[in-house]
Amino acid sequence: MPTSSLKRSLALSKVYGLLEPGPVVLLTTSHKGAANVMTLSWHTMMEFEPPLVGCVVSENDFSFAALNATGQCALNIPTVELAAQVVGCGNASGVRVDKLAKFGLTQVPAGLVEAPLIAECYANLECRVVDTRLRSRYNFFVLEVVKAWADPSIKAPRTLHHRGYGLFMVAGETIKLTSKMR
Amino acid sequence: MPTSSLKRSLALSKVYGLLEPGPVVLLTTSHKGAANVMTLSWHTMMEFEPPLVGCVVSENDFSFAALNATGQCALNIPTVELAAQVVGCGNASGVRVDKLAKFGLTQVPAGLVEAPLIAECYANLECRVVDTRLRSRYNFFVLEVVKAWADPSIKAPRTLHHRGYGLFMVAGETIKLTSKMR
Repeated sequence: MPTSSLKRSLALSKVYGLLEPGPVVLLTTSHKGAANVMTLSWHTMMEFEPPLVGCVVSENDFSFAALNATGQCALNIPTVELAAQVVGCGNASGVRVDKLAKFGLTQVPAGLVEAPLIAECYANLECRVVDTRLRSRYNFFVLEVVKAWADPSIKAPRTLHHRGYGLFMVAGETIKLTSKMR
Repeated sequence: MPTSSLKRSLALSKVYGLLEPGPVVLLTTSHKGAANVMTLSWHTMMEFEPPLVGCVVSENDFSFAALNATGQCALNIPTVELAAQVVGCGNASGVRVDKLAKFGLTQVPAGLVEAPLIAECYANLECRVVDTRLRSRYNFFVLEVVKAWADPSIKAPRTLHHRGYGLFMVAGETIKLTSKMR
């Protein structure tokens, strides 16, 4: 990350707190010199630390080939200010369009993977593919988050949560209850 | 479902819209005459129709044995009114406590599985385990939703989204954008 960014490295043990609420993410890849981005909601945490994330990237998505070939990607977490870009990326294919350029998303080099990070997203997770046993059947990849970045000034990110057909729930208030649950 | 319930059968093609935003769910099982419930946030859609859901049920959870033995469960989706019960179920073990009784959750017989449905939840998904290839490595189960119920009067459910250590984001407003994405 450039020094001008507000983002700081985030402990890997805290990554689950970013993904567990179920936000839409922007998955970026880099393959044969071309970066691409897709919109993704089908993901789940699978382990706390090192953080493992399972996700479905359809073989119909242009990103599928890049993810397969490179074994690397980044998960970038947008907030509601990026809603138009999130929908735009979900409705265009990287086969025909340089989506990062078209939607004005700024690429920042990652630390450990080739896939670019999206500067406008409040958090970025650098990932490597670690298990493909369910890929052929379900297009399901298990990713390990190897490096994480987040803007510490954003305490209650107004993340987007896809409900289908253009509807997105926007993260509301946060409540606190007494709990032993991590 | 009893005729007094407001819930109606939901088309399986619409199930993804309930789970894709990432709500905390209550997973119920029934095994050897005993019903149990656990709180679960690590789940993802894997296919639209028939709806497939991947989820992590830890081998440390009492529900793991029931899910393994019966291959059946229900995913019950609570709203913020049930926050105390959600946390309670997440902090107690079914080994020692009848959690459904302790937290005043009403069991309703399901149509196609033995696991009970929770009446107080606004939606209920009856599930069968269809793939256990990632169970031994990640405690990951692939479920098929075989029957779904939802209260059609609840258009914008105030679902809970776990952020860790007692913090829950409560579903906020829904926005609509023009999108071709299902």
